[in-house]
Amino acid sequence: MKQLHRKDLFGWSEFNNERNLDFHSVLWVREGGNILIDPLPLSEHDHGHLQKLGGVNFIVITNSDHCRDAENIAENTGALIYGPAGEEDTFPISCDRWIYDNEEVVPGLIAYVMEGSKTPGELALLLEHTTLITGDLIRCHVGGELCLLPDAKLSDKKLAVQSIKRLAELPGIIAVLPGDGWPLFNHGAEALHRLARSI
Amino acid sequence: MKQLHRKDLFGWSEFNNERNLDFHSVLWVREGGNILIDPLPLSEHDHGHLQKLGGVNFIVITNSDHCRDAENIAENTGALIYGPAGEEDTFPISCDRWIYDNEEVVPGLIAYVMEGSKTPGELALLLEHTTLITGDLIRCHVGGELCLLPDAKLSDKKLAVQSIKRLAELPGIIAVLPGDGWPLFNHGAEALHRLARSI
Repeated sequence: MKQLHRKDLFGWSEFNNERNLDFHSVLWVREGGNILIDPLPLSEHDHGHLQKLGGVNFIVITNSDHCRDAENIAENTGALIYGPAGEEDTFPISCDRWIYDNEEVVPGLIAYVMEGSKTPGELALLLEHTTLITGDLIRCHVGGELCLLPDAKLSDKKLAVQSIKRLAELPGIIAVLPGDGWPLFNHGAEALHRLARSI
Repeated sequence: MKQLHRKDLFGWSEFNNERNLDFHSVLWVREGGNILIDPLPLSEHDHGHLQKLGGVNFIVITNSDHCRDAENIAENTGALIYGPAGEEDTFPISCDRWIYDNEEVVPGLIAYVMEGSKTPGELALLLEHTTLITGDLIRCHVGGELCLLPDAKLSDKKLAVQSIKRLAELPGIIAVLPGDGWPLFNHGAEALHRLARSI
């Protein structure tokens, strides 16, 4: 896995031929139990790396299109899966807990529901006030510039815009780590403001 | 290939198990002939993408440890290979042209020799004053923070520091794209200044 912008955050990626961008997953190494977010399949090397970093206790999935390898990893490790409450009725895999808007998933990790996105309960996760981890609604196709999921995929553009403006108003966001596309490690709030102004 | 921060710049990557970071290559699409920098092997998909974008006319190699798949790509495409003049005597593959310090490789692409690095002629390339493409001396192991090749690998630390300070003084650098580690698409000058102050 690749170290991200903090000593306790790691990521691994998979290039997607169809979209010509990388999909990303995040590992947060923490005393109360490590967390994987939207985990892609791990290579043997990355699996070994994860074990050295303490394995995994919790898996958080931002939306039903980002289950990726979560079920398999949970089966092999005993990790608990947390999914978005808004998608409980149709979620493709079973979850141990459903996460609601403004809920503290674990200490220091707050979930925000991104209304109007392509699935009803998509979550964005704010880690210790400074690192925003997004699922599908906020993306980065062009290095350094955040973008929105295409209009055709949104269930309600107005609500999606409101959801993004709400995040852009949060103070102190440094990094934005999208599930799809380039990560931004610095000046995250600035990029969110640019996105909010552009939509 | 992944779009970088400009419509005419693309990249492709390869995760390195030993260092736990991505190696990167850059494609600059331009009217006078497309350029690849430090090209890794291309997947079939990326090769097709490259063809759609006009193929390749020139390959620039920043240092002898970054030849990667250049010779093979040149053989298959007829592209000319440009290498660092300071490594001419020992360069592992034959080059069609040797690049010197402060030389304009093609219009809008200036080469700077990074003295004191692990090889004698390592080049950094400045594209249209705003995008710095580095070989091995300037790297990015921690997202958002540039770093120097470890001291043990440098031939002359003092010269290496001078080379970096020289780049940090160039006005207007927005993006820094290291061959090894995370790209920085915004506030590149700021990151270079932080690096220059820290060494």
